Amino acid sequence: MMTAEIQIRHGGDLTQAAALFPDAPGPWVDLSTGINPWPYPLPAIPPAAWTALPTRGGLQALLAAAAMAYGAPAPDSLVAAPGSELLIQTLPRLRATGEVAIVGPTYGDHARAWAAAGHAVRAVTVPGDAVDAADVVVLCNPNNPDGRTWDAEALLDWAARLAARGGWLVVDEAYADLDPARSLCRHAGALGLVILRSFGKFFGLGGVRLGFVLAPPALLDAVRLALGSWAVSGPALAVGAVALADLDWQAATRRRLAAAADALDGVLRAGGLRVIGGTALYRLVDAGDAAALWRHLACAGLWTRPFPEHAGCQGWLRLGLAADRGVLDRLGAALAAS
Amino acid sequence: MMTAEIQIRHGGDLTQAAALFPDAPGPWVDLSTGINPWPYPLPAIPPAAWTALPTRGGLQALLAAAAMAYGAPAPDSLVAAPGSELLIQTLPRLRATGEVAIVGPTYGDHARAWAAAGHAVRAVTVPGDAVDAADVVVLCNPNNPDGRTWDAEALLDWAARLAARGGWLVVDEAYADLDPARSLCRHAGALGLVILRSFGKFFGLGGVRLGFVLAPPALLDAVRLALGSWAVSGPALAVGAVALADLDWQAATRRRLAAAADALDGVLRAGGLRVIGGTALYRLVDAGDAAALWRHLACAGLWTRPFPEHAGCQGWLRLGLAADRGVLDRLGAALAAS
Repeated sequence: MMTAEIQIRHGGDLTQAAALFPDAPGPWVDLSTGINPWPYPLPAIPPAAWTALPTRGGLQALLAAAAMAYGAPAPDSLVAAPGSELLIQTLPRLRATGEVAIVGPTYGDHARAWAAAGHAVRAVTVPGDAVDAADVVVLCNPNNPDGRTWDAEALLDWAARLAARGGWLVVDEAYADLDPARSLCRHAGALGLVILRSFGKFFGLGGVRLGFVLAPPALLDAVRLALGSWAVSGPALAVGAVALADLDWQAATRRRLAAAADALDGVLRAGGLRVIGGTALYRLVDAGDAAALWRHLACAGLWTRPFPEHAGCQGWLRLGLAADRGVLDRLGAALAAS
Repeated sequence: MMTAEIQIRHGGDLTQAAALFPDAPGPWVDLSTGINPWPYPLPAIPPAAWTALPTRGGLQALLAAAAMAYGAPAPDSLVAAPGSELLIQTLPRLRATGEVAIVGPTYGDHARAWAAAGHAVRAVTVPGDAVDAADVVVLCNPNNPDGRTWDAEALLDWAARLAARGGWLVVDEAYADLDPARSLCRHAGALGLVILRSFGKFFGLGGVRLGFVLAPPALLDAVRLALGSWAVSGPALAVGAVALADLDWQAATRRRLAAAADALDGVLRAGGLRVIGGTALYRLVDAGDAAALWRHLACAGLWTRPFPEHAGCQGWLRLGLAADRGVLDRLGAALAAS
């Protein structure tokens, strides 16, 4: 089973779960992601969104809605992409190779992408000296999986210090929708500051593939060039524009997710687990032997996210929100039997 | 109006058309692309395609259907991307800078993408000496906009000669669905051979954003890494898998497009124009003063595609297929009044 654990780089793939644990009782429940289980209701999608090439008008409508939702200065503060994951892969190829500090433990694709593009990557636990030594510092705010946050003043100071040497502070705000006050998007365009936003997690539409980068104009131009025309699908433009403009749904969803995270914590604690962090879209427990708990839950048809590849967090298991009481009950029963 | 012409790098954006020609009679008709006006009927899309991250199972189903439709050796002969345009932008960043020959006049983004990535780009009219001198040769088969084709034996020979020096022959088969016998996909994996396929044009679903690259395994690995996980949306996986597996629709569509191209040719010739090339998805005319004809048709609400930026083809105007008799009549009337 060790091989299986090592392969679990990402959550969210029940194909993999069912292949590895064919005898688990169905239906499989995916608790391996930080994706909202109550998706934004799909709006009507005009036929031309499917048939025609995406238009500038459609893109502008999306960017205007995103700028409003994120509190960015203007629609041209953002560039849209088919998922923030592609932006994570693209950014490292847009500057000369150098030294990159990844503040972690955190989402593993940052380190993998910078290393794959030839940069010298080192893991740090706080930005610290890296701000004045590295070319690029990457952190997630709030962090995945532990929910650690960083103050805006500190982040802006670090971005300025990096910028003074031509560097970047990359702030992955994949989960910042949960607490918009923490977002740096209102500072988009500040020198050295590169912000990533993810659409699919908070809006519960991970399959749509939509994300954004906010950065100074020259870097945004380079990203536009790297992505080419029409990188974002017509349906993503249409759905994103409606969902991002729906501030009422966003406010109600923040309340709903907070309540669901509380309920999940209750079940985890009743099961004897210690919740050590997370956000309202995922909770992190220190399970002691996380691999054993992960296997035990998988055998019960519950797919969660261990972090076998991260030094220093072998005890960590991350669980996404349960979509309904039935799932919480299955989780509670499985924990009671562990 | 010169500025407007210079801006027309791509077709397919009626936002731009309406902004430049606000007084044109509606409804605007888009004849500026090579996208099939009779789209594949959208199949039912399961809710999870929108809400969940795309799965390996979904991707495998798409790749199996694509391999069958294109005649590729196996599903793992292909990598899927959110549109072949992104692949055009990505390929130049996956090898050291060198000399790249673009066989043209052809789709302009090839030259722009290689140049943007730092390569030395030169335009050639036939591969000729470039096969033994350049690092990369790029051509479209059939070519856009003139429909020129290349024999498989010659292409395979050129790929082998380029491969012997570590080079690539990039064959953009964006319009090869129209004449599958010409495709090199059955040779996918041959050293030096890089094939691009586009889903949206033939299937009439340009907004879906789906394309493929076929190449030797090491290059496919590099593309997978550059795109990251989940680059293709859930809806694109679902729609693509169904449409690519529907060989009957594909055969019927080839016949329908051929008939529509004949009908368009009839209207163009009756209007005094000389059809000098194209494929069954677009026709190319030598209009003499192409800018004047483009403006005249735009003032009639008909959006076509001039090639102002290409040396040697200032007379060229490309027209996509008319979706119905009414459009052909509008075109005929506009040409009669020109």
